[in-house]
Amino acid sequence: MNDPDFFGGPYLYCGAQTSYRVAIGECILDLSVIAHLFDGPALKTHQNVFKQETLNDFMALPRTAWLEARSTIQKLLSDDVTTLKENSELREKSIVKQKDAVMHLPATIGDYTDFYSSIHHATNVGIMFRGKENALMPNWKWLPVGYHGRASSVVPSGTPIRRPSGQVKPEGANEPSYGPSKLLDFELEMAFFVGGPATELGQPIPIEKTEEHIFGVVLMNDWSGWIRRLFSIWNTRIHFTPDISPEVTIKPEGAPTFCMQNQLQAHVLDMKQQLAHHTVNGCNVKSGDLMGSGTVSGPEEGAYGSMLELSWRGSKTVPVGNQTRKFLQDGDEVSLIGVCEKDGVRIGFGECRGKVLPAL
Amino acid sequence: MNDPDFFGGPYLYCGAQTSYRVAIGECILDLSVIAHLFDGPALKTHQNVFKQETLNDFMALPRTAWLEARSTIQKLLSDDVTTLKENSELREKSIVKQKDAVMHLPATIGDYTDFYSSIHHATNVGIMFRGKENALMPNWKWLPVGYHGRASSVVPSGTPIRRPSGQVKPEGANEPSYGPSKLLDFELEMAFFVGGPATELGQPIPIEKTEEHIFGVVLMNDWSGWIRRLFSIWNTRIHFTPDISPEVTIKPEGAPTFCMQNQLQAHVLDMKQQLAHHTVNGCNVKSGDLMGSGTVSGPEEGAYGSMLELSWRGSKTVPVGNQTRKFLQDGDEVSLIGVCEKDGVRIGFGECRGKVLPAL
Repeated sequence: MNDPDFFGGPYLYCGAQTSYRVAIGECILDLSVIAHLFDGPALKTHQNVFKQETLNDFMALPRTAWLEARSTIQKLLSDDVTTLKENSELREKSIVKQKDAVMHLPATIGDYTDFYSSIHHATNVGIMFRGKENALMPNWKWLPVGYHGRASSVVPSGTPIRRPSGQVKPEGANEPSYGPSKLLDFELEMAFFVGGPATELGQPIPIEKTEEHIFGVVLMNDWSGWIRRLFSIWNTRIHFTPDISPEVTIKPEGAPTFCMQNQLQAHVLDMKQQLAHHTVNGCNVKSGDLMGSGTVSGPEEGAYGSMLELSWRGSKTVPVGNQTRKFLQDGDEVSLIGVCEKDGVRIGFGECRGKVLPAL
Repeated sequence: MNDPDFFGGPYLYCGAQTSYRVAIGECILDLSVIAHLFDGPALKTHQNVFKQETLNDFMALPRTAWLEARSTIQKLLSDDVTTLKENSELREKSIVKQKDAVMHLPATIGDYTDFYSSIHHATNVGIMFRGKENALMPNWKWLPVGYHGRASSVVPSGTPIRRPSGQVKPEGANEPSYGPSKLLDFELEMAFFVGGPATELGQPIPIEKTEEHIFGVVLMNDWSGWIRRLFSIWNTRIHFTPDISPEVTIKPEGAPTFCMQNQLQAHVLDMKQQLAHHTVNGCNVKSGDLMGSGTVSGPEEGAYGSMLELSWRGSKTVPVGNQTRKFLQDGDEVSLIGVCEKDGVRIGFGECRGKVLPAL
C-alpha cells in the first residue's frame, strides 16, 4: 500500500443513496460524514463533492484532488492520527460494515466504450470466425478497436440479469424465428473510469496527459454485450498495462462451482492509448465515462475469458462442477474476482457477480 | 394543424438555460412563465416539468400528459381564448422572438442508438463494398440493424464541428500513418426521442405499446458517425413511417450553394419496430434516449443522403455551386431542412446546420 506507483487502495464505493464511501477491510468509511476533514489546498473548497449521490463531481476535479483525497484518508486511518480514534461519535457515524451497505454504481455513466484489446482473445475469435491465416486483422496492432455501448446497461455487482430475446435463423430454416438467446456468454473485462475536467468535441488529449483523465479501474463482466456488472477499485496511481490475476467462477443453481484462473500479464491493454485514440477521433470525454478492455484472455485454455473460447464456439463441452456447459444456462451465477500483486503486495478487486434469469 | 393523426406542431425548443419553449412562427412561447396554466388532470400536479433545464422530466410523463400539454398550448393560442391576449405582462414575458433565443438540446441524452433503416442507402453501400449480388445482407429485412453511438457527441444545430483525425493506410504504404480524416461526410437522418416512464433491463415493450414511448422526431446530420447536429420537432401524434421531403444544402466558404432534394416516402423506417427490437434485446430505455434512422436515401441519385453515395465512394465529382466535391472540405457548411406534407398541410422541421472546421 505504500508503493505510490502500484495499485493502491482504498477502494471507493458509491454508498447508499446520498454519499459515497471508502472500503477498508470489512468496513466502509462514509466520506460524507467526514467531508469537513478534507482541508488540503485542492479539496477544502470542494468538500461538497463527498456529499453527492455519485462520484462524478469528485472525478471531475483535477488529479491533484484525487491524490490529496487519498493521502487524507490514509492519514486519517494511520496509527498515529487521533482525529477519528478519539471522536467516538464521528467514528461510529462514519464507519459502516460492508455487509450492511448497498452497492451502487460509482458514477452516472455518460458514455461507455468497449475496446477489443486482448491479443489472445482477438486471435481466438479470429481463428474461430476467419481461420488461422486471417486470425488477427491487419489494423489490430495499429489502433485500439472499440465500439460504443449502452451506458444504461451498466449495473452494480449482485444485480441478476434477464436472458435477452431476438431473431435467429436456425441451420436449414427458411426464415428467421424469434426466441430467447441460446448463446449467452460472460466476458471477463477490465475497465477504467474517465476523470478530470471534461474535454470539448474535437479536442485531443495527448498521450502524455492521459494519466490526468484516468480516474480508476474496475473489474467488469460483459454479458455478451448487453449488460455489464462491475466492481470498482479506486486508484490514484495505477499501472496502465496492469498485471492482474482474475478468477472466474460459474455456479449452476444448487451445484458445485467451476473455477478458472486467468493471467492478465499477457494482455495488451494500454488505457492511455485507448483514451488518446478516442479523443483524436473527435469524441469529447467527461467524468464518469467508462472504457472497457474487451474480453481479457490469456494464451492458454485455462486463461480464456469467455464461454465462446472455453467451448470453442460450442464445439466442446466445459466441465462446470458436476455438470457441463457450452454457454450459460438460466440459473447460472457467474462471479469474477481479481488480485493485483507486485513486490509481495496483494490488492483484491472484490467480487463482480450476477445470476442469469430466464427470458420473459 | 387540426389533423390529430398528422405531424402536428408546436415545435418544442429547449430554451435558454432554465426553461423550454414552444415555437410559433417567428416567436417562441416560454412555457416556464405560463407553467401555472397547465391545469388539466395529467399536468396540474406536474407543472414543475416546464421549469427544468431540459425536457427529460416532461418526456418521462405518460403520453396523456404530452397530449394534454399540446391541447393546452393550442387552446392558449387560439383566437377565442383571452388568457394571454388580455394579460399584456404575461404575454410579453412569455413570448420571445426566435432570433433572440439560443438553441439547446431538448433533453439530456442518456443513450443514443443509430439504426440502418433506409433500404436504398443500405443497398447503395452494399453495392459499393460487396458488389451488386450481395448488396443487401440477408438479415436486413428481418431485424432493425443498429449500433450504439456516443450521446456526448450530439449537439444542437449551428455548432461548428472540427474535422477528426485518425490512422489511415494509404494504398501501397507499408505502415498506417496518422492525420486528419480525408473522407468527412454528412448523413441525412431522422431520429426520435424516447418518452414515457423508464423501462427495466430485460423488460420488452410490445409493438402495440411503442407509441407510448415515442415522444417526438428530429432531423439529424450524422457527421460520419461522430458528431450529430439536430433540430427537434415535438409531435404528440406522428406517423411512424413518416413521409417527409428533406433538402440538403452544401455551402463552400464564400461560394454559392448546392441543393439536393430527398424524398423520404421510399424510406423503410418503422420507429415502432426499432424500439420494440431494442427492448427485447435486453436494453432498458428512458426519456431522452435518442434513436436515429441511419442515412436516409431515396432510390435515385438526386435523393441520396450522403457524399459517400453522391460521389459513389469518391469515384466521381459532385457539383457544389461553382466548385466540385467528393467529400466535405474544411469551411463547407451543411444545412438540412425537412418538410412534411399531407392533405395540403405543410409542417417544416427547421434548419439543422453545421460548418466544418479544420482538424487541430
